[in-house]
Amino acid sequence: MNTKRPELLVVGSVAIDWIITPKAVREESVGGSATYFAMAASFFAPIRLVGVVGEDFPASTVQDLKSSGVDLEGLETITGGKTFRWKGRYHDNMNDRTTLETHLNVFEHFQPKLPERYRSSEYLFLGNIQPTLQRGVYEQMQRPRLIGMDTMNLWIDIARDELVNVLGNVDVLTINDEEARQLSGEDNLVKAARAILELGPRNLVIKRGEYGALLFDSDGDIFAAPALPLEEVVDPTGAGDSFAGGFMGYLAGQGVEPSGSVLRTAMICGSVMASFCVEGFSYDRLREIAIDDVQERFDRFAKLTDFTRASLA
Amino acid sequence: MNTKRPELLVVGSVAIDWIITPKAVREESVGGSATYFAMAASFFAPIRLVGVVGEDFPASTVQDLKSSGVDLEGLETITGGKTFRWKGRYHDNMNDRTTLETHLNVFEHFQPKLPERYRSSEYLFLGNIQPTLQRGVYEQMQRPRLIGMDTMNLWIDIARDELVNVLGNVDVLTINDEEARQLSGEDNLVKAARAILELGPRNLVIKRGEYGALLFDSDGDIFAAPALPLEEVVDPTGAGDSFAGGFMGYLAGQGVEPSGSVLRTAMICGSVMASFCVEGFSYDRLREIAIDDVQERFDRFAKLTDFTRASLA
Repeated sequence: MNTKRPELLVVGSVAIDWIITPKAVREESVGGSATYFAMAASFFAPIRLVGVVGEDFPASTVQDLKSSGVDLEGLETITGGKTFRWKGRYHDNMNDRTTLETHLNVFEHFQPKLPERYRSSEYLFLGNIQPTLQRGVYEQMQRPRLIGMDTMNLWIDIARDELVNVLGNVDVLTINDEEARQLSGEDNLVKAARAILELGPRNLVIKRGEYGALLFDSDGDIFAAPALPLEEVVDPTGAGDSFAGGFMGYLAGQGVEPSGSVLRTAMICGSVMASFCVEGFSYDRLREIAIDDVQERFDRFAKLTDFTRASLA
Repeated sequence: MNTKRPELLVVGSVAIDWIITPKAVREESVGGSATYFAMAASFFAPIRLVGVVGEDFPASTVQDLKSSGVDLEGLETITGGKTFRWKGRYHDNMNDRTTLETHLNVFEHFQPKLPERYRSSEYLFLGNIQPTLQRGVYEQMQRPRLIGMDTMNLWIDIARDELVNVLGNVDVLTINDEEARQLSGEDNLVKAARAILELGPRNLVIKRGEYGALLFDSDGDIFAAPALPLEEVVDPTGAGDSFAGGFMGYLAGQGVEPSGSVLRTAMICGSVMASFCVEGFSYDRLREIAIDDVQERFDRFAKLTDFTRASLA
């Protein structure tokens, strides 16, 4: 009997952000899609990370990731290079934001190279990078059991054909509502979802920030996961990546073929991790919590959505 | 044993709208908060309506309401008067709208007068009218078991003291998210809800349109009801009033003290009726459906939100 836990590989950005919110500023806030994803997913499964940083990347984050059980053999450090940096300001509603500066630095020429032993990972998440690079990643893999991916408006704009090509090979696409509208050309989310599923992905998750997330699954069913109403949102950065981490992490931890039922529970795990993420800057909260906190919050989601199935007649 | 079903009284506007959406126009679309409320609530309980119309009000709507079991003794027709008219245009997202014209007409001097036999109604919903008029209504009542109310930004602006006075006497306030922020002065909805509950209402429902609704109950619990993802929204007008009708109607139909559990099921009934409302202009869809359709859609909400409570460790 093979008791080895299935490994989840994530490929994506690793960044140092400069975050300005109406209430506070964090100048060196370690972020990036792969960082948030890995920290969130590490509660559920062993994680392997492929990314690139410069010499300025803090050793403390490397330590935090390792302490969380994240395998960093795939994290490349470019000698003399600087880490991808992003500076942004959140508006009063803590939902809209304005990008002030973007410096791709070493991320500009990122060519994901998978360490040999990563190639047999059973679960793969393609973070938001150029679609041709995403394709290059799964072509380096042996045969992952399940592939999830994210993308962004930029690639929908300038690399649509490559993106659609990748979509045909993924089990779950996780994007936000604006991206879903842009990718499909449909204002209505249900129509948008149907159009996107016809492009290839077997399941689609549409993230709606403070309004939660919708799953459109391969059976044609829809599942609505709420966001947890929070009294204090410190920094929304990374919420979507933490969602993806909780979602994919749960699937990898289960190690089963993702039925509708398992995908639904994974949606709640994603919502749980997103809710922790936004309670602090960077991955501060994801580092502080333990699996008991995750379970407790999962149970809060259960209570938040529970109602009695009634006979109305 | 008294087997009489508890009656639900609604007081509010009755209007003729002129609705322009990106796809269609309806010039004489009968609306108003009391109309939508009554049509939605009539599936669950006997309804009594207090409102005012002019001589231009269509006899067909009077017939529709009566056919739905709505008692119209309280609907006053002003000889020579014209019904409240509103004209508005919905934007491409079908969420935002611009008011093009408002003619209060007979609604301007509306003074709700309750027929004698209405005064013993056990359930009361105060639709969105001037707070002093709302107060005048419940002062005409004997002792309703449960009072719900709605309001709007105008009254929060110009009649805040009267509004807060009324709030101290209601069991459930149903408002939208922008109104909640305005009434409380808090951007964060959880903080806004807490501040509003301190003003008096025992429970608070915050409606969020296509994102569903939140219940903050007297036990300090939160319940999140999603909106049904719909492929076609014809006209959002009246969604909030139909929600309130389904919500209050279910409570009246149950005839029990509203515990957290009953309020949650009522939230879903509200969401069900709102989802039907927006599928057509005016109350077209609410007239077409039967209780079996309501039950079927209720079950769809159950499926939409169902997930397995998992042990994550």
